[in-house]
Amino acid sequence: MGQTITEKILDDHLVDGELTPGEEIGIDIDQVLTQDTTGTMVWLQFEALDMDEVQTELAAQYCDHQTYQFDFKNTDDHRFLRSAAGTYGAYFSRPGNGICHQVHKENFAAPGKTLLGSDSHTPTPGGLGQFAIGAGGLDIAVAMGGGAYYVEMPEIVNVHLEGELPEWATAKDIALHLLGELTVKGGVGKVFEYTGPGAESLTIPERTTITNLGTELGATSSIFPTDEKTKSWLARQGREDEYVELQPDDDAEYAEEITVNLDELEPLIACPSMPDKVVPVSEVAGTEVEQTIIGSCTNGAYEDILPAAKMLEGREVAKHTEMIIAPGSKQASEMLAREGWTSELMAAGVNFSEATCGACIGIGHVPASDSVSLRTFNRNFEGRTGIEDDSVYLCSPEVATAAAIKGEIVDPRDLADELDDLEAPGLEMGTTYTDGMGQDDADIITPEEAIDDELIKGPNIGDVPLRDGIDSEVAGEALLKMEDNITTDHIIPATADILKFRSNIDKLSDFTLSRIDDTFADRAREADGGVLVAGENYGQGSSREHAALCPMYLGIEAVFAQSFARIHKANLFNFGIVPLEIDAETYDRIDQGDDLDILEDVDAAVRAGQEEFQVSVNGDWEFSATLDASDRELDILAAGGKLSWTKRQHQSDGAAPADD
Amino acid sequence: MGQTITEKILDDHLVDGELTPGEEIGIDIDQVLTQDTTGTMVWLQFEALDMDEVQTELAAQYCDHQTYQFDFKNTDDHRFLRSAAGTYGAYFSRPGNGICHQVHKENFAAPGKTLLGSDSHTPTPGGLGQFAIGAGGLDIAVAMGGGAYYVEMPEIVNVHLEGELPEWATAKDIALHLLGELTVKGGVGKVFEYTGPGAESLTIPERTTITNLGTELGATSSIFPTDEKTKSWLARQGREDEYVELQPDDDAEYAEEITVNLDELEPLIACPSMPDKVVPVSEVAGTEVEQTIIGSCTNGAYEDILPAAKMLEGREVAKHTEMIIAPGSKQASEMLAREGWTSELMAAGVNFSEATCGACIGIGHVPASDSVSLRTFNRNFEGRTGIEDDSVYLCSPEVATAAAIKGEIVDPRDLADELDDLEAPGLEMGTTYTDGMGQDDADIITPEEAIDDELIKGPNIGDVPLRDGIDSEVAGEALLKMEDNITTDHIIPATADILKFRSNIDKLSDFTLSRIDDTFADRAREADGGVLVAGENYGQGSSREHAALCPMYLGIEAVFAQSFARIHKANLFNFGIVPLEIDAETYDRIDQGDDLDILEDVDAAVRAGQEEFQVSVNGDWEFSATLDASDRELDILAAGGKLSWTKRQHQSDGAAPADD
Repeated sequence: MGQTITEKILDDHLVDGELTPGEEIGIDIDQVLTQDTTGTMVWLQFEALDMDEVQTELAAQYCDHQTYQFDFKNTDDHRFLRSAAGTYGAYFSRPGNGICHQVHKENFAAPGKTLLGSDSHTPTPGGLGQFAIGAGGLDIAVAMGGGAYYVEMPEIVNVHLEGELPEWATAKDIALHLLGELTVKGGVGKVFEYTGPGAESLTIPERTTITNLGTELGATSSIFPTDEKTKSWLARQGREDEYVELQPDDDAEYAEEITVNLDELEPLIACPSMPDKVVPVSEVAGTEVEQTIIGSCTNGAYEDILPAAKMLEGREVAKHTEMIIAPGSKQASEMLAREGWTSELMAAGVNFSEATCGACIGIGHVPASDSVSLRTFNRNFEGRTGIEDDSVYLCSPEVATAAAIKGEIVDPRDLADELDDLEAPGLEMGTTYTDGMGQDDADIITPEEAIDDELIKGPNIGDVPLRDGIDSEVAGEALLKMEDNITTDHIIPATADILKFRSNIDKLSDFTLSRIDDTFADRAREADGGVLVAGENYGQGSSREHAALCPMYLGIEAVFAQSFARIHKANLFNFGIVPLEIDAETYDRIDQGDDLDILEDVDAAVRAGQEEFQVSVNGDWEFSATLDASDRELDILAAGGKLSWTKRQHQSDGAAPADD
Repeated sequence: MGQTITEKILDDHLVDGELTPGEEIGIDIDQVLTQDTTGTMVWLQFEALDMDEVQTELAAQYCDHQTYQFDFKNTDDHRFLRSAAGTYGAYFSRPGNGICHQVHKENFAAPGKTLLGSDSHTPTPGGLGQFAIGAGGLDIAVAMGGGAYYVEMPEIVNVHLEGELPEWATAKDIALHLLGELTVKGGVGKVFEYTGPGAESLTIPERTTITNLGTELGATSSIFPTDEKTKSWLARQGREDEYVELQPDDDAEYAEEITVNLDELEPLIACPSMPDKVVPVSEVAGTEVEQTIIGSCTNGAYEDILPAAKMLEGREVAKHTEMIIAPGSKQASEMLAREGWTSELMAAGVNFSEATCGACIGIGHVPASDSVSLRTFNRNFEGRTGIEDDSVYLCSPEVATAAAIKGEIVDPRDLADELDDLEAPGLEMGTTYTDGMGQDDADIITPEEAIDDELIKGPNIGDVPLRDGIDSEVAGEALLKMEDNITTDHIIPATADILKFRSNIDKLSDFTLSRIDDTFADRAREADGGVLVAGENYGQGSSREHAALCPMYLGIEAVFAQSFARIHKANLFNFGIVPLEIDAETYDRIDQGDDLDILEDVDAAVRAGQEEFQVSVNGDWEFSATLDASDRELDILAAGGKLSWTKRQHQSDGAAPADD
């Protein structure tokens, strides 16, 4: 039977399981990427693995989220990341060199390779035929240590693109069209493979805009076939030899087929405050705009900014509108400057920013109160800009630029009618990309060029806590009894004042569950251990591993909940905390402050795969709790967490050769 | 008798007093400038004056300190400033257009004119022959209302520059040499006039680097004669018609003469953490450098950054060093891009920043812990970077770039010996500056182009409180009894979390004296008025007017202190608070919580110029307190503060013509 592109790549990398949708598979990882807000913990975890060097073909550390370096802790983090990359053999991309997805695409992404990254937009280089997935930090550390990555085998959806984009419609509009049709949940458990003449007609930057936005569909990944355009784009980056032809077999079977006729697309826009609230631009025309920003990992390439430059040449940004361009990479910035576009954009009134994630994650250029901002980014969740009642629209660079010129939302086709010399900007490539670029870049320190051979830790950079194994006796006070639907934001808040402690678990732990009870951390430290009790859906929300790591650090050994959110439950396993399910009646009977004692030898029971556990409350009464876990999860738990588990695997691997 | 340049300009603008050093003079102000952290209060005060438009020839509002817009309050401030400039007839320079001193120099600074600015580096355009002084915000508001500016007539010092700068020595080294010789207090009460063949040899950007650094000498202002270089520089900005020849008379008499022989200068550097800790660069050579930054109002012109570009062409920044260029203005950024230097600098590993004050005031690019930063800025006070134990050296762009290349402090002459193709960069002007620049700039909204005709106030922008007049009865509880040497930092802290409330007096007042007693603001609000008691030197430190404005807002009517710091005492008058001096014995006898009642009719007594006031304590005992004030200060106090005083003057001015 024929295979899809995804199946071909996964087949090549499969180390565990079978390619059956919904089944867990283990795959070998060729490349990993991390960025500065998740990377510090990744390297601290890697340090805890006690390995000499990264085991993947390639690891790359980027500095893109906190490049403004508001606090010395950010700058210390960047220095630590440089030292970690140097010490363990990873590439280091300096602060200012750009956003991980854009820079990785330019320098390292390769067709047919697997990429795991600690950032949700990691699938971006799918536009080049790379199979890329976002994951939690510990998964990256484990992959760097040579461990497989486990994921549910996704369903493969074929998105067949017919026709060609008309003037003023863009790749962004293809992605927005899909978001409007499928919603932000439409891609959960799926991979989107783009094929057809419409896919062939798109440039690489256009393809990566679409794969980047696949994350907003909730997709596991998105991918395009490779072709002459892929090859010539790689050649311009000086990496033609990394080209591999990748096409689905003619008789490949897809779980689903979606057809989009590009000829019928028009300029679209996602309204506040969800990426799938998509309408034609003309429907919201006339809305006054105070800010437009072009950039981000979605539309931050040279070719994304070029249309803005062409549209603004000889024109000016409206007086009441601020226009900011934050290129996705220094390569993009440098090309714009080299080709003469930077000075034109500046003359038009554009404020050029460093190449940074910046405004996209609420770091800088927060909109004014009660104002509209048009951004070429991928997310417009309410409050993400840094102000609660924001009003952010997502659109193409062309639509954002038209709004900057007119000072209000306008369909660029209507603006072109109004200004008779405004033409739809075509894409030209300019000079070749290899002039002073590629892997010889001054902003990428290769493992060979590394100047660090030990970790440089500023005072805010702590050690990663490691649990040796699970205890036989698990008992302690119910330190906190919580309601239903406690989120990871409740467990570890992500506001900027707390975010800067992400590499300092001792300090970060002070904020554990502080939104529910600000005495919790102190009480947990004093009690030197204990358990948590919660209602339904405990740990919903983001995938942040700190929501398990910090409770573990404070000595929490078990969580009793009516039910757990999926990712958080995995994180509890990963950090050696026993997640036990209880019924509603038991939940009601337990009071905060009760002493809970699991009557089994927990270590032995977990190893034996036991599911039911008897628990004594204050020695007065007993209840039964359930441990629902796969064999792999039980192994991880028994080892005290995924880090210890991985470490032991390596030690046994390491020991093996000596027996030969 | 012949006149100095300063005397000529002051003579032309004198409206009160005589040009006798040490005597108070009132001068007419031609131009004012404000920036975003001081400007919001300036415009709120101007609004309170109830005038239709700015009365000075020119007023310019810049956005340069908070251009990263970390918080919507910053963005709201910028929008408010645009609306205020539009409403009242000022020029508005958009966020991203650059630092006030650099942009003002490029667009508006004119020889022979007076300039008052709410920023301490306002004297920068002295290099163009403008007489410019920094002042508090209320002084700017009053000047915009047509009021004279009062200042002590300074002593005029002649700095005679002989010879010419040798290779690798720069204008920065002239200023650093003077700082080393005279110290940071060497210029207090003085104006420095630069003359001689060495002065003639300097370009305009070189001259303004020197006048900018005059502030670090503590000088009231600094000024250069004008000549063909001034004329041609103005011509390049499209402003040749604003040229005026300005030279001191041959028989001008200076209070002091200093001669500097430029031939003898070498690359200098100011060591941590004071601008006058100056040594030859060679003395600290070999110190490892983790960060270099080129930019700021001191060295942020195109010609300041050009040497860095030439030195880095074909070279790379050292792997462990971060190099950031923050141009002083978008004109500088645009010229660098237009002339092809931006792409070269980027290729060398430089991170380009927006044109902003940024790092110079601790906003962004905070150094890593325990690391050395070389900056071309004007101040290296400890902790100013945003980290307490910083280690900042001040130097020329050439020295900073040499350090970036080598990764350690190095005399650029030694580096040139090491790298045989490294030549001392000469200054070339490139194309004319008028291409797309000057006052037609898209980033400057002229009064004619203004789109706002009313103030746009975000939720954080409050009203400026105004006191109608002084009360006849001044009495109340001694709400706080303080020690000696209370600083304005104690009264109103300036940390970033509090700074963002500078345009919201109601909110800012919550922090009044919080570093001494965090219940103070609440107690003052509850008591609805009261008085303060302090020891010696109350209100030392910065000139921030908020240290008087907030206590006034909380209802404080009088401060009893053993002595007052000079500027803060003026601020108390300006905001209608009676500053009364008491002796040590009285200070000792008063307890916090006592009820103090001034027995005189205070309004009548102030109007009558009474100096001694009897005060009853709890009705039990009495003491005598002294009001030491000039007639002008008594007038201001009687009016309830300078704002009310100015407002009344305008109202009576307005009434006068009707009597004709």
